[in-house]
Amino acid sequence: MSTLFVRTLREDPVDAEVASHRLLVRAGYIRRAAPGIYTWLPLGLRVLAKVEAVVREEMNASGAQEVHFPALLPKEPYEATGRWEEYGPNIFRLKDRKDGDYLLAPTHEEMFTLLVKDLYSSYKDLPLALYQIQTKYRDEARPRAGLIRGREFIMKDAYSFDVTDEGLAASYQKQRDAYERIFTRLGLEYVIVSATSGAMGGSRSEEFLSPSPIGEDTFVRSAGGYAANVEAVVTPVPEAVPYDDAPAAHVEDTPDTPTIDTLVALANAKYPRPDREWTAADTLKNVVLALVHPDGRRELVVVGLPGDRDVDLKRLEAAVAPAEAEPAGDADFAAHPELVKGYIGPKVLGPQGAVVETESGDKVSAIRYLLDPRVVTGTRWITGADEQGRHVFDLVAGRDFSADGTIEAAEVRAGDLAPDGSGPLELARGIEIGHIFQLGRKYAQALGLTVLDENGKRVVVTMGSYGVGVTRALAALAEANNDEKGLAWPAHVAPAHVHVVATGKSAEVFEAAEAIAGELVDLGVEVLYDDRPGKVASPGVKFADAELLGVPIVVVVGRGLADGLVEVRPRVGEAQQVPVADVVRVVTEKVEALLA
Amino acid sequence: MSTLFVRTLREDPVDAEVASHRLLVRAGYIRRAAPGIYTWLPLGLRVLAKVEAVVREEMNASGAQEVHFPALLPKEPYEATGRWEEYGPNIFRLKDRKDGDYLLAPTHEEMFTLLVKDLYSSYKDLPLALYQIQTKYRDEARPRAGLIRGREFIMKDAYSFDVTDEGLAASYQKQRDAYERIFTRLGLEYVIVSATSGAMGGSRSEEFLSPSPIGEDTFVRSAGGYAANVEAVVTPVPEAVPYDDAPAAHVEDTPDTPTIDTLVALANAKYPRPDREWTAADTLKNVVLALVHPDGRRELVVVGLPGDRDVDLKRLEAAVAPAEAEPAGDADFAAHPELVKGYIGPKVLGPQGAVVETESGDKVSAIRYLLDPRVVTGTRWITGADEQGRHVFDLVAGRDFSADGTIEAAEVRAGDLAPDGSGPLELARGIEIGHIFQLGRKYAQALGLTVLDENGKRVVVTMGSYGVGVTRALAALAEANNDEKGLAWPAHVAPAHVHVVATGKSAEVFEAAEAIAGELVDLGVEVLYDDRPGKVASPGVKFADAELLGVPIVVVVGRGLADGLVEVRPRVGEAQQVPVADVVRVVTEKVEALLA
Repeated sequence: MSTLFVRTLREDPVDAEVASHRLLVRAGYIRRAAPGIYTWLPLGLRVLAKVEAVVREEMNASGAQEVHFPALLPKEPYEATGRWEEYGPNIFRLKDRKDGDYLLAPTHEEMFTLLVKDLYSSYKDLPLALYQIQTKYRDEARPRAGLIRGREFIMKDAYSFDVTDEGLAASYQKQRDAYERIFTRLGLEYVIVSATSGAMGGSRSEEFLSPSPIGEDTFVRSAGGYAANVEAVVTPVPEAVPYDDAPAAHVEDTPDTPTIDTLVALANAKYPRPDREWTAADTLKNVVLALVHPDGRRELVVVGLPGDRDVDLKRLEAAVAPAEAEPAGDADFAAHPELVKGYIGPKVLGPQGAVVETESGDKVSAIRYLLDPRVVTGTRWITGADEQGRHVFDLVAGRDFSADGTIEAAEVRAGDLAPDGSGPLELARGIEIGHIFQLGRKYAQALGLTVLDENGKRVVVTMGSYGVGVTRALAALAEANNDEKGLAWPAHVAPAHVHVVATGKSAEVFEAAEAIAGELVDLGVEVLYDDRPGKVASPGVKFADAELLGVPIVVVVGRGLADGLVEVRPRVGEAQQVPVADVVRVVTEKVEALLA
Repeated sequence: MSTLFVRTLREDPVDAEVASHRLLVRAGYIRRAAPGIYTWLPLGLRVLAKVEAVVREEMNASGAQEVHFPALLPKEPYEATGRWEEYGPNIFRLKDRKDGDYLLAPTHEEMFTLLVKDLYSSYKDLPLALYQIQTKYRDEARPRAGLIRGREFIMKDAYSFDVTDEGLAASYQKQRDAYERIFTRLGLEYVIVSATSGAMGGSRSEEFLSPSPIGEDTFVRSAGGYAANVEAVVTPVPEAVPYDDAPAAHVEDTPDTPTIDTLVALANAKYPRPDREWTAADTLKNVVLALVHPDGRRELVVVGLPGDRDVDLKRLEAAVAPAEAEPAGDADFAAHPELVKGYIGPKVLGPQGAVVETESGDKVSAIRYLLDPRVVTGTRWITGADEQGRHVFDLVAGRDFSADGTIEAAEVRAGDLAPDGSGPLELARGIEIGHIFQLGRKYAQALGLTVLDENGKRVVVTMGSYGVGVTRALAALAEANNDEKGLAWPAHVAPAHVHVVATGKSAEVFEAAEAIAGELVDLGVEVLYDDRPGKVASPGVKFADAELLGVPIVVVVGRGLADGLVEVRPRVGEAQQVPVADVVRVVTEKVEALLA
C-alpha cells in the first residue's frame, strides 16, 4: 500500500449517482477521463482481468475460438447491412486523412460475417463459434452510472455460424449454458428474460439481467416462471365483445376536460353510468408521438390506448425500431390543425382521417393510428370528438372506427397477466449483463455468407450473436456487493484474497505482518499488504481503506501481537482473534473455502 | 486442425511487400480489415498473448504498475501541450454527438501526467512508474508492411515520474534494463541507438532496433561502439580553415551546368585547378525546401551543403520537427524569382538576401539559409551566381557569405566518422521495436504536475516515456524467423510447442497420434494436432501447413508407425526417427531445451 498507485477518497464524486460508480471511484479502481469514458487504475485492472479470465475460460470451454477485431472499421460493411444509417447518432464516426468514412464499432456482426465468408465455404466447416473480448464504442446520449452505461467499454461478443435452424438453436443453447456458468462463477445473480431483438434483427432473443434497483431495464416475472424484458411483453388480447345492442355513439359537451381525470369526473357528474362509475379505463386516450427514422424523416403517429395507461416510450421504441420516438411538439400540432389537443378522437386519425399518397403511389393514412391490443372489436369508449370541449360517448371499436394496426406501447403494470397464462406479473429492475440473439440469416444474406451444403447447393448461413458486458458485469458485481463502508468483492474477482494491515509503530508488528503476508504469498494466496508507517496512515485510516477496497479477508496485526494474537476479519462477517502461529493456516482455509 | 479457425493460403497476398506480412496472412495469423488495420485470428492471437505476457512480466518486475487508459480521449489535454496541433493529419480526430472534439490517442503522455497530478502531491509518492498495454491509433500517410506500420496497433507505453534529474536517470535506466530483458526473452536481436526526441520533446532518447533489411529506420554503428539512428547522428565539425591568402571570389560563365556533375565537368575543362581535379565536394549545393508547420504555414528554407551529398529528408525533418519538409515546388519558385534554378547561390539567401519583418517586429531573412556543419569558416566553394549559366568560384565561407544557422540535413554515408571519435560508421536498417525518452519537465510543466519537495516547496515533476511496439515486435519476430517455406517461431512465442501431424488413412496412425498429443498436453506441452482425415488433407498439404505455421517441433506419425517409429522434425534442423515409446520423452526434452 505504500507504493501501490491508489488514493482512496473520503468524499463521493459529485457526478456519481449509483453505488458502484461512487465506490469504484472512491476506492481508486477507476477514474473518469471523459463523460462515460474511464481509466482503469491498478486495483480496477486486476478485478477486470479476473472477470475477463472467467469469461474467456467459459467461452473456450464452450468450444468458441478467440479472435480479435479492430475497433476502427470502414463504413462499407455497416452500410451493406443498413446499420451505418440505423445507428444514427449513437455511434462515433470519423474520417481518415483520405476522407474515407470510418466508425468505432459498437458491435461486430458484419466483420465476423465477412471473416467467415473470407475463410470458409463448406457445410463441413460448420458449426463454428468465434468470440472476442474487445473495446467497444457507443456515443450514448446520456452516459450514466459510471461503468453501467459508458461510451467506451469492454464487451465479450461471440457469434455462431450454422447451416440449419436446428444447428443455430443448438449453438444458441451452448452459449446460453456458457452464460449461466459465467455469471454463476462470477457470483452474480441473474434472471434470463425474453427480449426484443431491436436494431439487431433476428428471431429469438434473451437478456441476462442482474436484478438491481438501479438497473435501467425493467423486467416482469410471474410466479409461474414467465420472465421478460418489459419491451418484450406481449399483451394478452381479450376476446372481441358483441356490440349489437350498443347505443349509437353520441357527442356530448365536456367543457374543461383536457385530462383523463377531469373527463372521468365530469362524465360521472353529468353523464352517469347506470351500472357503475366511469373510470379512466373507459376512456380511449390518443397520444400523439413523433417517430424519427434513421434517415432523419419525422413521422407523426397516434397511439390509442385505455386512458388508465400511459405510453411506455421504451416499449414503443422497441416496437418501431430502428426509429426513435418522442412526444409530439408544438410544431407538429401546428402542422396538423385537425388535432385538437386534449380532445383528439379517432375521427381524424388513421382510416377515418385524411389520406396521402406515398412516393410509391400507395394511399396511406395521413396520420398513422395504432391501437393498444386491448382495444378489440366491440369495446366501447369515451374519447375526443375533435372539437374543443367535446367528447364522444359509446364509440365502438370496429363499428365506429378502426386503425392502421396495433402496437405494444402501453406500460406494463404489476398485476397484468402473463401472456403464457402463468399468472399475474411482478415488476423489477435489472442491469443487462448479457444478451443473446438468434440472428438468423439477416447478416449472412446482406453480406453474402453462403456455404455449399451436402448436395453442393449454395445455402445462406444462419447466425447467432452473444454479448457479455464485461465492464458492466464488473459494475453489477460492485453494485451487488457493497455496504455503507465500501466494496465487498466475491473472492473470485477481488483484487486480492487477503488484506494484511499492520497498525501501530512497533517494528515487531511490521515484521510479523510482513512475514504473514510473505507466507501467504508463498502459498499462492494473493495479498495486499498495508505497510504504510503509522505516521502516514493511522489504524483508523487503514481500517477504513480496507473496508472501502473490499478485499474479502482482512488480517490485522497490531496491539494484540504482544499477546500472540492476530485479528482475522472477514469483510462481511465476524472477526476472530487467532494465535499468530495459526493465522496462515486459518486464513488459507478461509480463502480456499471462499474460492471453492 | 480440423476445427481450428484457420485457412492457410498458397498465394501471397497482393499487397504484402515483406515476409512477415506475407507469411502472417498466408499462415492465417492475421487478416486485413482496412489499410493498416488487422484482425487477429486464433493462432495470431496466441502469439500476441505470449508477447504481451513477456512485456507484462518484465514491466511488473521493473516495479512499474499496470493501468489502462481509454483510446478515445477529449482534445483538451492534448491542446494544453500543443500536440493536438503538432500531430497535424497524423492522428484520427472525431466529434461526439455534442460536437465535442476527441482523438484516438497515438500515445498517452498527457493522460498519465494528469492522472498522477490527480492522485499524487508529495515527493514521498515518487518515484513512480506506470504502464499500460493498449490499442493505439495513428493515421499514417502510408501504412505499410503489415503490422510494421499500421494505423491501429498495440503498444506498451510506460511513464516514469521523479522529482530530480538523477531520479529520472535511474528510472530511465530501469526501463532500459527491462527492455533488454524483454527483447532477449522474446528472442529478438536488437541494437540500442541514440535517437532524436522528435515531436515528443525532452533530452535523452534511445531506440531499440531489430536489425532487418526491411526496417524503416536507418542506423549507423562504429566498430568502437557508437550506434545511432541516422536522424540522431551529429556531424563532427571540422576546424575552421585560414583564408588569408584565398583569392577573391570571381564569377565565371558556366553554361548548361544545371547539375553538380555538369558543373564539375565544365570546371575541370574550362577552369582547371592546378593541384588536383575539382570534385563534387568542392561545390556548394543549395537545396530549396518547403517546411510545412503544424499550423499549415509554409516556409521556404535553403540548405547549403557540399555538392557530393544529398539532403536526407528524414534527418531534415528530425531537425525541424514538428514541421514537415518537402522539396520546393513550382509555385514556390514562382513566388521567388530571385531563385534561379540550378544556379542558386548564397547572394540571395539568408543574411545576404532580402529581409522581412515578422509579426513581432523582428527582422529576419526572407529565405532562411541553413548550412551543413561541414561548411566552416574559410572553406572555399564553387556555387551558383544567381544568374542563368553562371557560377562563382573561390567563394569563402565567413568572408563572402554567412547563414542563419547550421542544420543536420545531409545524408550520412558509410565511412563517415562517428562523432565520438570511435571510427568510421557503417549503415544498417532496423525495425523500431522500442523507444525510450527522458522527457524532462515539458509535459508536467504544461499540465501543472507538481509535488511538494522535502522543504515544502512546489517543484515540477520530471518524466520519462517508454514504448514497446507490441504488434510490431511480433512482426519483427516473424521477419527474423522465417524461410522460403514459412514461419519458424522461437518456442517462447510460438502458438504451440509441438505440431503433431497424422498422415495416411489407417485408424492406428490417428489413434497413436492422438495418444501422443494427449500425453504431451498432460505434461504441459502446448500441442497443435493435425487430425484432418486423409481425404481432406494429404500428407503433402499437412507438411506444407506445418512448415508455414512455424511451430518449432513437428512430430509426424505415419507410415513408419508400422515399424514402431515416429519422425521428430524440428522446424529448423535435422529430422530423426524415434521409437514410438520414446517420442514423448524426446519431444518433451527438446521443448524444455528450447524454452530454457
